[in-house]
Amino acid sequence: MSDELSTLLERFKTRDTRALARIITLAERSADFSERLLDALGEQTHRRAHVIGVTGAPGVGKSTLIDKLVLKFREKGKSVGVIAIDPSSVFSGGAVLGDRSRMNRLSVDPQVFIRSFGTAGELGGLSRGARDAIKILRAFGKDVIIVETTGTGQNEVDVALYVHTSVVVTMPGLGDDLQLMEAGFPEIGDVFVLNKSDLAGSDASYAELKNMVQLRYAERAWKPRVIKTVGVSAQGVDELLRALEEHYDHLVSSGELSLRENAGFRKEVEEIIKERLEHELKRYLENRFSEQSVNHNPYKVAKSLLGEFTKLLKV
Amino acid sequence: MSDELSTLLERFKTRDTRALARIITLAERSADFSERLLDALGEQTHRRAHVIGVTGAPGVGKSTLIDKLVLKFREKGKSVGVIAIDPSSVFSGGAVLGDRSRMNRLSVDPQVFIRSFGTAGELGGLSRGARDAIKILRAFGKDVIIVETTGTGQNEVDVALYVHTSVVVTMPGLGDDLQLMEAGFPEIGDVFVLNKSDLAGSDASYAELKNMVQLRYAERAWKPRVIKTVGVSAQGVDELLRALEEHYDHLVSSGELSLRENAGFRKEVEEIIKERLEHELKRYLENRFSEQSVNHNPYKVAKSLLGEFTKLLKV
Repeated sequence: MSDELSTLLERFKTRDTRALARIITLAERSADFSERLLDALGEQTHRRAHVIGVTGAPGVGKSTLIDKLVLKFREKGKSVGVIAIDPSSVFSGGAVLGDRSRMNRLSVDPQVFIRSFGTAGELGGLSRGARDAIKILRAFGKDVIIVETTGTGQNEVDVALYVHTSVVVTMPGLGDDLQLMEAGFPEIGDVFVLNKSDLAGSDASYAELKNMVQLRYAERAWKPRVIKTVGVSAQGVDELLRALEEHYDHLVSSGELSLRENAGFRKEVEEIIKERLEHELKRYLENRFSEQSVNHNPYKVAKSLLGEFTKLLKV
Repeated sequence: MSDELSTLLERFKTRDTRALARIITLAERSADFSERLLDALGEQTHRRAHVIGVTGAPGVGKSTLIDKLVLKFREKGKSVGVIAIDPSSVFSGGAVLGDRSRMNRLSVDPQVFIRSFGTAGELGGLSRGARDAIKILRAFGKDVIIVETTGTGQNEVDVALYVHTSVVVTMPGLGDDLQLMEAGFPEIGDVFVLNKSDLAGSDASYAELKNMVQLRYAERAWKPRVIKTVGVSAQGVDELLRALEEHYDHLVSSGELSLRENAGFRKEVEEIIKERLEHELKRYLENRFSEQSVNHNPYKVAKSLLGEFTKLLKV
């Protein structure tokens, strides 16, 4: 173990937030660091904690709702980590503008840790750094870890594999277009939230949402709760908190908690292997691919390059 | 060559639309079929055609705008293919509800071919079937091929690699939130369209959009056009058509056309290799992964499984 890692871990054990932040940064930068770190942390990364995913389209008020939820958890004496996945940082490589004001609002409280990550590039879902951050926050002793992601679609399904409870946030009027109807209705929600429910038309949207949930989740053991909230005034947030706790209790009593964690571990192993293969493949193609390779049949070119690539891999 | 393929190709050569549809379906189903097909089609898949990507958030009016654009191209005597990428079919495995009415509106015209595809699953961007459909439509003799995709982010960048001209569609008010501002502003637009420009606030949105484009594309040889349209009344669609033609002429005269096509080919080869590797990996993990593999360090598990996997690959 490197000297830096052992020094950081000493401070980490004393609940030093700056050591926590540094460790998350180093793990994000290097898979080798992560591997050594996870060896050192051992079973601590499986410490009891409630990992909650919050997802929804841009503009439905996820951040405000999460802020209020964090305050409620704090009132109950629980320590909280927030992992915000920011799709726009694909382009900027950095955090969004809104983030700083948020940090100021919540991070005065030393028991609340907030960190932004970019998306996992073209793969969607959680980046390696974000996945490791969940484990590191658990080992640090956070009671609740909230993972905020934007958008609907395949992304959500991927993120759901790494959390215990998936919260899908929507707002009145959003379900009226094709997005949240029929074809696009999310299959991964454990709790559905109709935020901004003080807006006109919220009763109809709530009825429709409830109906869709009943229809789609009829066969499942857990019937998702559907909750009306108003993020800015914290209305409904107590009820949301209760729903989250009920779902966690259900996961524990049904034995689904360990099933979910095992499925997440398996998916993570697959992602790590894929990331390594893709990294090697990119490097190989950069050297190997030439303008002469361009013709009318990419399948043939792919086949011959794949053959050569796997030969190189085996060495 | 299989009998079915040679029969289909005979009909394909006589511009039989049903043979075209069948070939696209078979190519989508099987990479082996695609490989044989592309060998048979040879250089025809490089036939001169203008491949146009149209992207934008849900609700900005892409479909209506594309319908009007298709009618304009038809007035000029050009045959058109439309490839609609439908993100919601990740869940449904089929086409969206709105699609049938659209088919009815445009497909009375035998010179217009429309086909929907799902997204490429967790990979985002164009699926293998959609990529091949572009090539097949070129070989069939379509003059213009429009690829419609939804959303902003990494997806757009991937799709841009397979088209000649990228059109980014937005609408008044959408740029006001973080989505289209600063961090998230698309880097891949050749033509920007402010649709629904009869809405209130359109002048301010247009000025802001123009400003962002000037700022972001200052260093590039091609300065993207920024065009106001009203899809429902076809207002501005003539101007959009001219901008598309100007951009195509620029690609030809600057030599960028073949650079773009080569970059697309290269990316496609990489995608095909990745898809094959992932397919093999999934199959391998299904057999190999056991509950015993679950521990606290996915990196270690990944390393040992990757070693075994590459050994199997080389055989």
